Amino acid sequence: MRELQERILREGKNLGNGILKVDGFINHQVDPALMDACGKELARRFKDVGATKVLTAEISGIAPAVTTALHLELPVVYARKHKPITMPDQVFLTLSPSHTKGRMVELIVSPEYLGHGERVLIIDDFLATGATILGLVRLAQTAGSTLVGIGALIEKTFEGGRAALSHLGVPIESLAQIVSMEGDQIKFAVE
Amino acid sequence: MRELQERILREGKNLGNGILKVDGFINHQVDPALMDACGKELARRFKDVGATKVLTAEISGIAPAVTTALHLELPVVYARKHKPITMPDQVFLTLSPSHTKGRMVELIVSPEYLGHGERVLIIDDFLATGATILGLVRLAQTAGSTLVGIGALIEKTFEGGRAALSHLGVPIESLAQIVSMEGDQIKFAVE
Repeated sequence: MRELQERILREGKNLGNGILKVDGFINHQVDPALMDACGKELARRFKDVGATKVLTAEISGIAPAVTTALHLELPVVYARKHKPITMPDQVFLTLSPSHTKGRMVELIVSPEYLGHGERVLIIDDFLATGATILGLVRLAQTAGSTLVGIGALIEKTFEGGRAALSHLGVPIESLAQIVSMEGDQIKFAVE
Repeated sequence: MRELQERILREGKNLGNGILKVDGFINHQVDPALMDACGKELARRFKDVGATKVLTAEISGIAPAVTTALHLELPVVYARKHKPITMPDQVFLTLSPSHTKGRMVELIVSPEYLGHGERVLIIDDFLATGATILGLVRLAQTAGSTLVGIGALIEKTFEGGRAALSHLGVPIESLAQIVSMEGDQIKFAVE
């Protein structure tokens, strides 16, 4: 998606070690119009998968998941990293390594909002190693839901996430595919 | 706002001790169409305050802040509770008591995205004691920004937040005002 790619080139920062800073429009400051355009495009790409629910992980998955779900007219569930007091004692919980935190984090979903027979579309900001998304997949599977697709704003193809998710046999879509981040460069796949 | 009030009556749960569970459409599962309608209404109420930025706190402020900002055509900044590695060493940081966590949490904003001369509209999911919003106000003031308004989806008037914020002299708007939560009841202010 040209609009997102141009924004990354203009405002994204390669901090080294594969870390892409997009805090100016996705991860701390959010550009709602851009998120809405991205959500519209993801909704277009997944309009025929028969999703009944969008699943994401707090925190930075929320904005793109909400805009995608708005255009698909579906509810969103965001996996929590800490169990709030409003959640029942029995939950779906999995552990997932956090790239930016250097430790395992919990991903928790209440059985109230993810259940048997749901057709789940996972949306996140990044597809990197695929670890967070695999955590969400395990939650969906444990809940008895069917995974129907995986979408991300930005894919770092050199971190292998797509290969790690390919056995799931569902469509995987990303709106900007970064193939390398050598030095301070950010190189995109040719569309 | 009738739509939100009816949804709270239908699906909200009074868990006692003033805790309102709205996990089915705001705090864990999100109804994007409802969030968009709420954002549109908050945008309407604040259209004349001359805001240049919407400020909120992660996590559950993100959805209503993004939809409000979408309708106002403004960027959103969400204060982080943990400093990510992409943030510079010098940040704006304040401590705020968390009602649902029973301890102080940090609210952190990067000076890159909140600065002198910004006109800040604060949007959050709840206005209860006003403590989180006062934390956001301190961040905005420290940054040299001007506060121009405060909006929330749900106000619990019996927790006194509006009074705690009144000295700020800015318009305060909420879309559903709960005046009491005795027993398992949820009572709204008469509109």
